Amino acid sequence: MASWLPGADESGFGADNLPYGIFSRPGDAPRVGVRIGDFVLDLAAALGDPEFFASSLIPFMARGSTAWRATRAKVGGMLTAGAPQATVRPHLLPLDSVTLWAPFEVADYIDFSCSLEHATNLGQILRPDSAGLPANWRHLPVAHHGRSGTVVASGTEVTRPYGQLRAPGETYPRFGPSTSLDLGAALGFVVGAPTPLGRPVPVSEFAEHVFGVVLVNDWRAHDVQAWESGPLGPFLATSFATSISPWVVPLDALGAARFAGRQQAPLPMPHLRRVADWGLDIALEVRLNGEVVSRPPYAAVYWTPDQMLAHLTSNGAALRSGDLYASGTVSGARPDQRGSLLELSWGGAEPVGLTDGSTRSFLADGDTVTLSGWARGMAGGAISLGEVVGTVRAVA
Amino acid sequence: MASWLPGADESGFGADNLPYGIFSRPGDAPRVGVRIGDFVLDLAAALGDPEFFASSLIPFMARGSTAWRATRAKVGGMLTAGAPQATVRPHLLPLDSVTLWAPFEVADYIDFSCSLEHATNLGQILRPDSAGLPANWRHLPVAHHGRSGTVVASGTEVTRPYGQLRAPGETYPRFGPSTSLDLGAALGFVVGAPTPLGRPVPVSEFAEHVFGVVLVNDWRAHDVQAWESGPLGPFLATSFATSISPWVVPLDALGAARFAGRQQAPLPMPHLRRVADWGLDIALEVRLNGEVVSRPPYAAVYWTPDQMLAHLTSNGAALRSGDLYASGTVSGARPDQRGSLLELSWGGAEPVGLTDGSTRSFLADGDTVTLSGWARGMAGGAISLGEVVGTVRAVA
Repeated sequence: MASWLPGADESGFGADNLPYGIFSRPGDAPRVGVRIGDFVLDLAAALGDPEFFASSLIPFMARGSTAWRATRAKVGGMLTAGAPQATVRPHLLPLDSVTLWAPFEVADYIDFSCSLEHATNLGQILRPDSAGLPANWRHLPVAHHGRSGTVVASGTEVTRPYGQLRAPGETYPRFGPSTSLDLGAALGFVVGAPTPLGRPVPVSEFAEHVFGVVLVNDWRAHDVQAWESGPLGPFLATSFATSISPWVVPLDALGAARFAGRQQAPLPMPHLRRVADWGLDIALEVRLNGEVVSRPPYAAVYWTPDQMLAHLTSNGAALRSGDLYASGTVSGARPDQRGSLLELSWGGAEPVGLTDGSTRSFLADGDTVTLSGWARGMAGGAISLGEVVGTVRAVA
Repeated sequence: MASWLPGADESGFGADNLPYGIFSRPGDAPRVGVRIGDFVLDLAAALGDPEFFASSLIPFMARGSTAWRATRAKVGGMLTAGAPQATVRPHLLPLDSVTLWAPFEVADYIDFSCSLEHATNLGQILRPDSAGLPANWRHLPVAHHGRSGTVVASGTEVTRPYGQLRAPGETYPRFGPSTSLDLGAALGFVVGAPTPLGRPVPVSEFAEHVFGVVLVNDWRAHDVQAWESGPLGPFLATSFATSISPWVVPLDALGAARFAGRQQAPLPMPHLRRVADWGLDIALEVRLNGEVVSRPPYAAVYWTPDQMLAHLTSNGAALRSGDLYASGTVSGARPDQRGSLLELSWGGAEPVGLTDGSTRSFLADGDTVTLSGWARGMAGGAISLGEVVGTVRAVA
């Protein structure tokens, strides 16, 4: 499973990763590529398959798991030690010679709340008088639909949103730029194979429908959310932008990261009960202006992605290729594992110190947030989920 | 403005209506049509414009308001008295010879809560101990994103959804078919012209972005919603199906239905303040198994659609062609104007009696719900919004 490309296996993008993305060369239309080391394999050219001239992964993802696995086997065969290199080399393009695009157009976007520590922290910070976790939280993975039209590619600037804000003690809100803009470190699951209306997807079929994972920065304006959310939940607080990483890492690359998943009590209802190991040991990292501020362990989440999928289709809702569902902000038990500034600064009570002497309770204009993720690879090394980057732009 | 087609003007689909839809003839691909009387004008053939061979209204809607108005003028010219009929007649297909499809693929679906009476009724029925309207309700049109992938064409059967339900007084929920499945009589606004990220749409630009209206049956499982909603709002309670009518009535057909809109207090913030008359006097009608059970007056809604659009983009969210935003269930002040069974039966306390002697607090398996809508037309008669029909199917 080692790659013949020097340095690839050590880069996190070795022959056991092979994530898919959309790239273009200057003057050319975007098309499908696979990342290996610091190169992109031009898939349409390498496989001689015109389907990969598509500017989105959706046509490929819609073909289903048999096609995914066959293509992965072919690409892996081309890039691992022992394979002939001369026919492949011409189709390897240096990463710095191409532009990366959003890997697919999101159909429906769903934002879950799967991290027990995150949900608990939020309850303590925002609703200190309340009972803690909502009553339903351990019975189902709480979720809501977000705005698929504003899921943006890594690198897209994020403009600080305006919104209605009501200061504590005030009766009337005012309209202005959010003063509690935050990041949210999350993992996203990309649906490949669709389902018809009226057919719930059992937990056992998770890997037949979900193609892979991306990193998600689930930006959020807490002040906007606090005022708008009753009784229908968040709306404009999250719909201004959601950033995703350019490389979709196939589920098949995450075999060595799988484990049973966090223990659950009470035992979930039968249709949500796990039948396979879909806990994922993925190390997330949050950098603020280049400085690591948190390392949320995805392994700590309570609800696994097979359970999320079973829940979201349990009412018969259809899946489309390109549906994206995210874990919600991931936080671990330790203070330096919290996946949002709201938690890291504990609602502003303990601002995060940066090495330049400044502090943050929430994001400042000009701040750049970078999320990255790593997992154990099948070859014994590490595989990278890449990065999702976004810089906060002041409102005009 | 009278049509030369006998009976067309009296049908609600005269030359002052001219709604757009997608139809197909047996063996042919779906394409764009305009309804006139009980006929469909085959637009690609009548105008000689291959763009109308599309199986969705999106390419046409994306062209923007200048194209919409030019096409409407051309089609109107062909169908009004005095125009030559011989060249048009071959392109008129009897409605009963064609199949109607969903008029467009929904990009993002947003469900507002714009009816003051509906929101008030729900508060009294579901939260009798609470303060009534949520504090934010008169400051912004409360909304949440729904599932665009399960917006279905009129006529699609709706399977009673399963969900987690917690009986009053119980600690643990159970999983079963909803026992409080309901209809929701709503009006939907269809976005035609898109906007880039970061550019709020002022209320004044409503008619440059919204192409037209459809009827929406916003099906809902109240018991599922009650348990799942805290704290992120409705999810599976509405995502199993949302039905829309086949004909998109252009805003330009609704000129005679426009009025200032319901008075608002407090005065909305500047960015939500009305600058034109976008109140719409549209009479809705709800039939259950053919029997009229309610006549919700759309004119009674509190928030007008220009305000909804300004709100939903006020954080810089981009619009896509095919975005659909609905008013939420519309209820008037009178008991026979309530837009849901939950309200008509007042939470089950006063079941609705049908002429067959049966009663309904919520929908029964086999029930057929038909929503229709009428407005004053520019020619002095009435224009129809058509119908949206759905029958409840028992779970398998």
